[in-house]
Amino acid sequence: MGAAAFDFETYYSRRVARVERALRAAVPALKARRLKRAMDYSLLAGGKRLRPILVMAAAEACGAPADAVLPTACAFEILHTYSLIHDDLPAMDDDDLRRGRPTCHKAFDEATAILAGDGLLTLAFELIARNGARAGVGAAAALEASRVLARAAGGEGMVGGQMLDLEAEGRRTGLSGLKDIHSAKTGALLTAALEAGAVLAKATPARRRALVSYGRHLGLAFQVADDILNVVGDQAKLGKRVGSDAQAHKATYPALLGLQKAREIAHNELRLGLAALKPFGSAGEPLRRLARFVVERDR
Amino acid sequence: MGAAAFDFETYYSRRVARVERALRAAVPALKARRLKRAMDYSLLAGGKRLRPILVMAAAEACGAPADAVLPTACAFEILHTYSLIHDDLPAMDDDDLRRGRPTCHKAFDEATAILAGDGLLTLAFELIARNGARAGVGAAAALEASRVLARAAGGEGMVGGQMLDLEAEGRRTGLSGLKDIHSAKTGALLTAALEAGAVLAKATPARRRALVSYGRHLGLAFQVADDILNVVGDQAKLGKRVGSDAQAHKATYPALLGLQKAREIAHNELRLGLAALKPFGSAGEPLRRLARFVVERDR
Repeated sequence: MGAAAFDFETYYSRRVARVERALRAAVPALKARRLKRAMDYSLLAGGKRLRPILVMAAAEACGAPADAVLPTACAFEILHTYSLIHDDLPAMDDDDLRRGRPTCHKAFDEATAILAGDGLLTLAFELIARNGARAGVGAAAALEASRVLARAAGGEGMVGGQMLDLEAEGRRTGLSGLKDIHSAKTGALLTAALEAGAVLAKATPARRRALVSYGRHLGLAFQVADDILNVVGDQAKLGKRVGSDAQAHKATYPALLGLQKAREIAHNELRLGLAALKPFGSAGEPLRRLARFVVERDR
Repeated sequence: MGAAAFDFETYYSRRVARVERALRAAVPALKARRLKRAMDYSLLAGGKRLRPILVMAAAEACGAPADAVLPTACAFEILHTYSLIHDDLPAMDDDDLRRGRPTCHKAFDEATAILAGDGLLTLAFELIARNGARAGVGAAAALEASRVLARAAGGEGMVGGQMLDLEAEGRRTGLSGLKDIHSAKTGALLTAALEAGAVLAKATPARRRALVSYGRHLGLAFQVADDILNVVGDQAKLGKRVGSDAQAHKATYPALLGLQKAREIAHNELRLGLAALKPFGSAGEPLRRLARFVVERDR
């Protein structure tokens, strides 16, 4: 596939459609019907579906077909959705709006939202375990992908990052504290999505490391872009409140460094992320375009 | 090992000690130190450690050494602990006391308790994934154990059972509704502990089925015994409030059928559970004694 011929818009919308189809079938029928409704409510609310698309793109860059890793791709989106539900809870960030709709605890209630999150977190690991049965994947790769996801999602990753974020509220957080929070809260899962794709495709250690490096730069660029959108973004496109960070006196890149410097950081991380993709040649083109999309998106 | 020579008290206390040692090392050092403290607070609060002991006993009955399955045994206790933390939250059962100490959200705060639960749930799957590296286990068995745990813990199991339990509050629940709640909320995880032990030991399908059957009877016997203890138990030994079920007008076996009939059911399930162990001969003795312990315990 030549770089010039690559139509990113079509690629992205087709991948989103494939992920949406799979996610609609992901939560099984449950005796606890309210639980199933709440899980589907949050899971099927749209969104960029960036993490599953990264899993598939990483696997493809390492020579595996995207379909072989679809259950794991869904697992990453499901895990991301659980984290949004729990982060939005009254005891946490207390948000009413998510992806343009009432948050899960607003649409249902707090107990249901906690359980929907717990159910989705658990379902993510069930899907990865099932991915071991797919042709060309096997148990060893699926188990390693499960370990990669667990590390990125747990106390050393996302859950730890959310704890640090809550503790930082109302305190002065410097740039290094901010980096710690973001690399754990956002970067770890994005990086793990790429690493899991590489693992399932049985990539060489060098390619796996290259994707992890790309993921770290992408994760930071993603978060800086998120911070910038919280200042200059369009609430209707974002589906969540704009200006909420400044209102909460949250440490962000624009708040600490100004918009101009924040933009420079995002673009520098983008440049470094693209450099990490060099070994992949033209097979890395989707990942290159995804990195640009992450920095230049408006939602 | 002759049945007559088997010293259950020593067996149980040694197993508890081994599990406690492993659990003390289970939560890694975290940048989010408050999170680590909360996870350890709930995880290291004592308790019967029944689920890990069942994992090890099932593996041994199928010919594997107990140490080979220790990470998965810990994973079951860690997952059980997460479920207690979340069940105790104000939005759920709103309990102040657990294992004789303030519940996690009382000792810390609600956000920390939610995150400690999330972190423990995630850690459980990380430990199972790591169990694949143990000699004699391998990736395929560990991945299958992970799938077994995920199914038992998710919307079709424990999380679904808690949802049904919350929905049943203030409604009339008949015996079949009660059975649905308990088999999902408690039975599924106990059964999965036994099944995971069998899977990791590479048991024959017949032995795996026998342990699942034993687990189902044990799970029901366990819950009926729990209900009975909530009526006649000693609060100091139990470490939680006695009489709380009746106060909350909760459907329980004693409430629906009376104490005498509830005791008969527990003993009938015990009998059926013991019958399922027949194929194991004397290697099933620890599991037999564990079943008696579950029904006859005072805590």
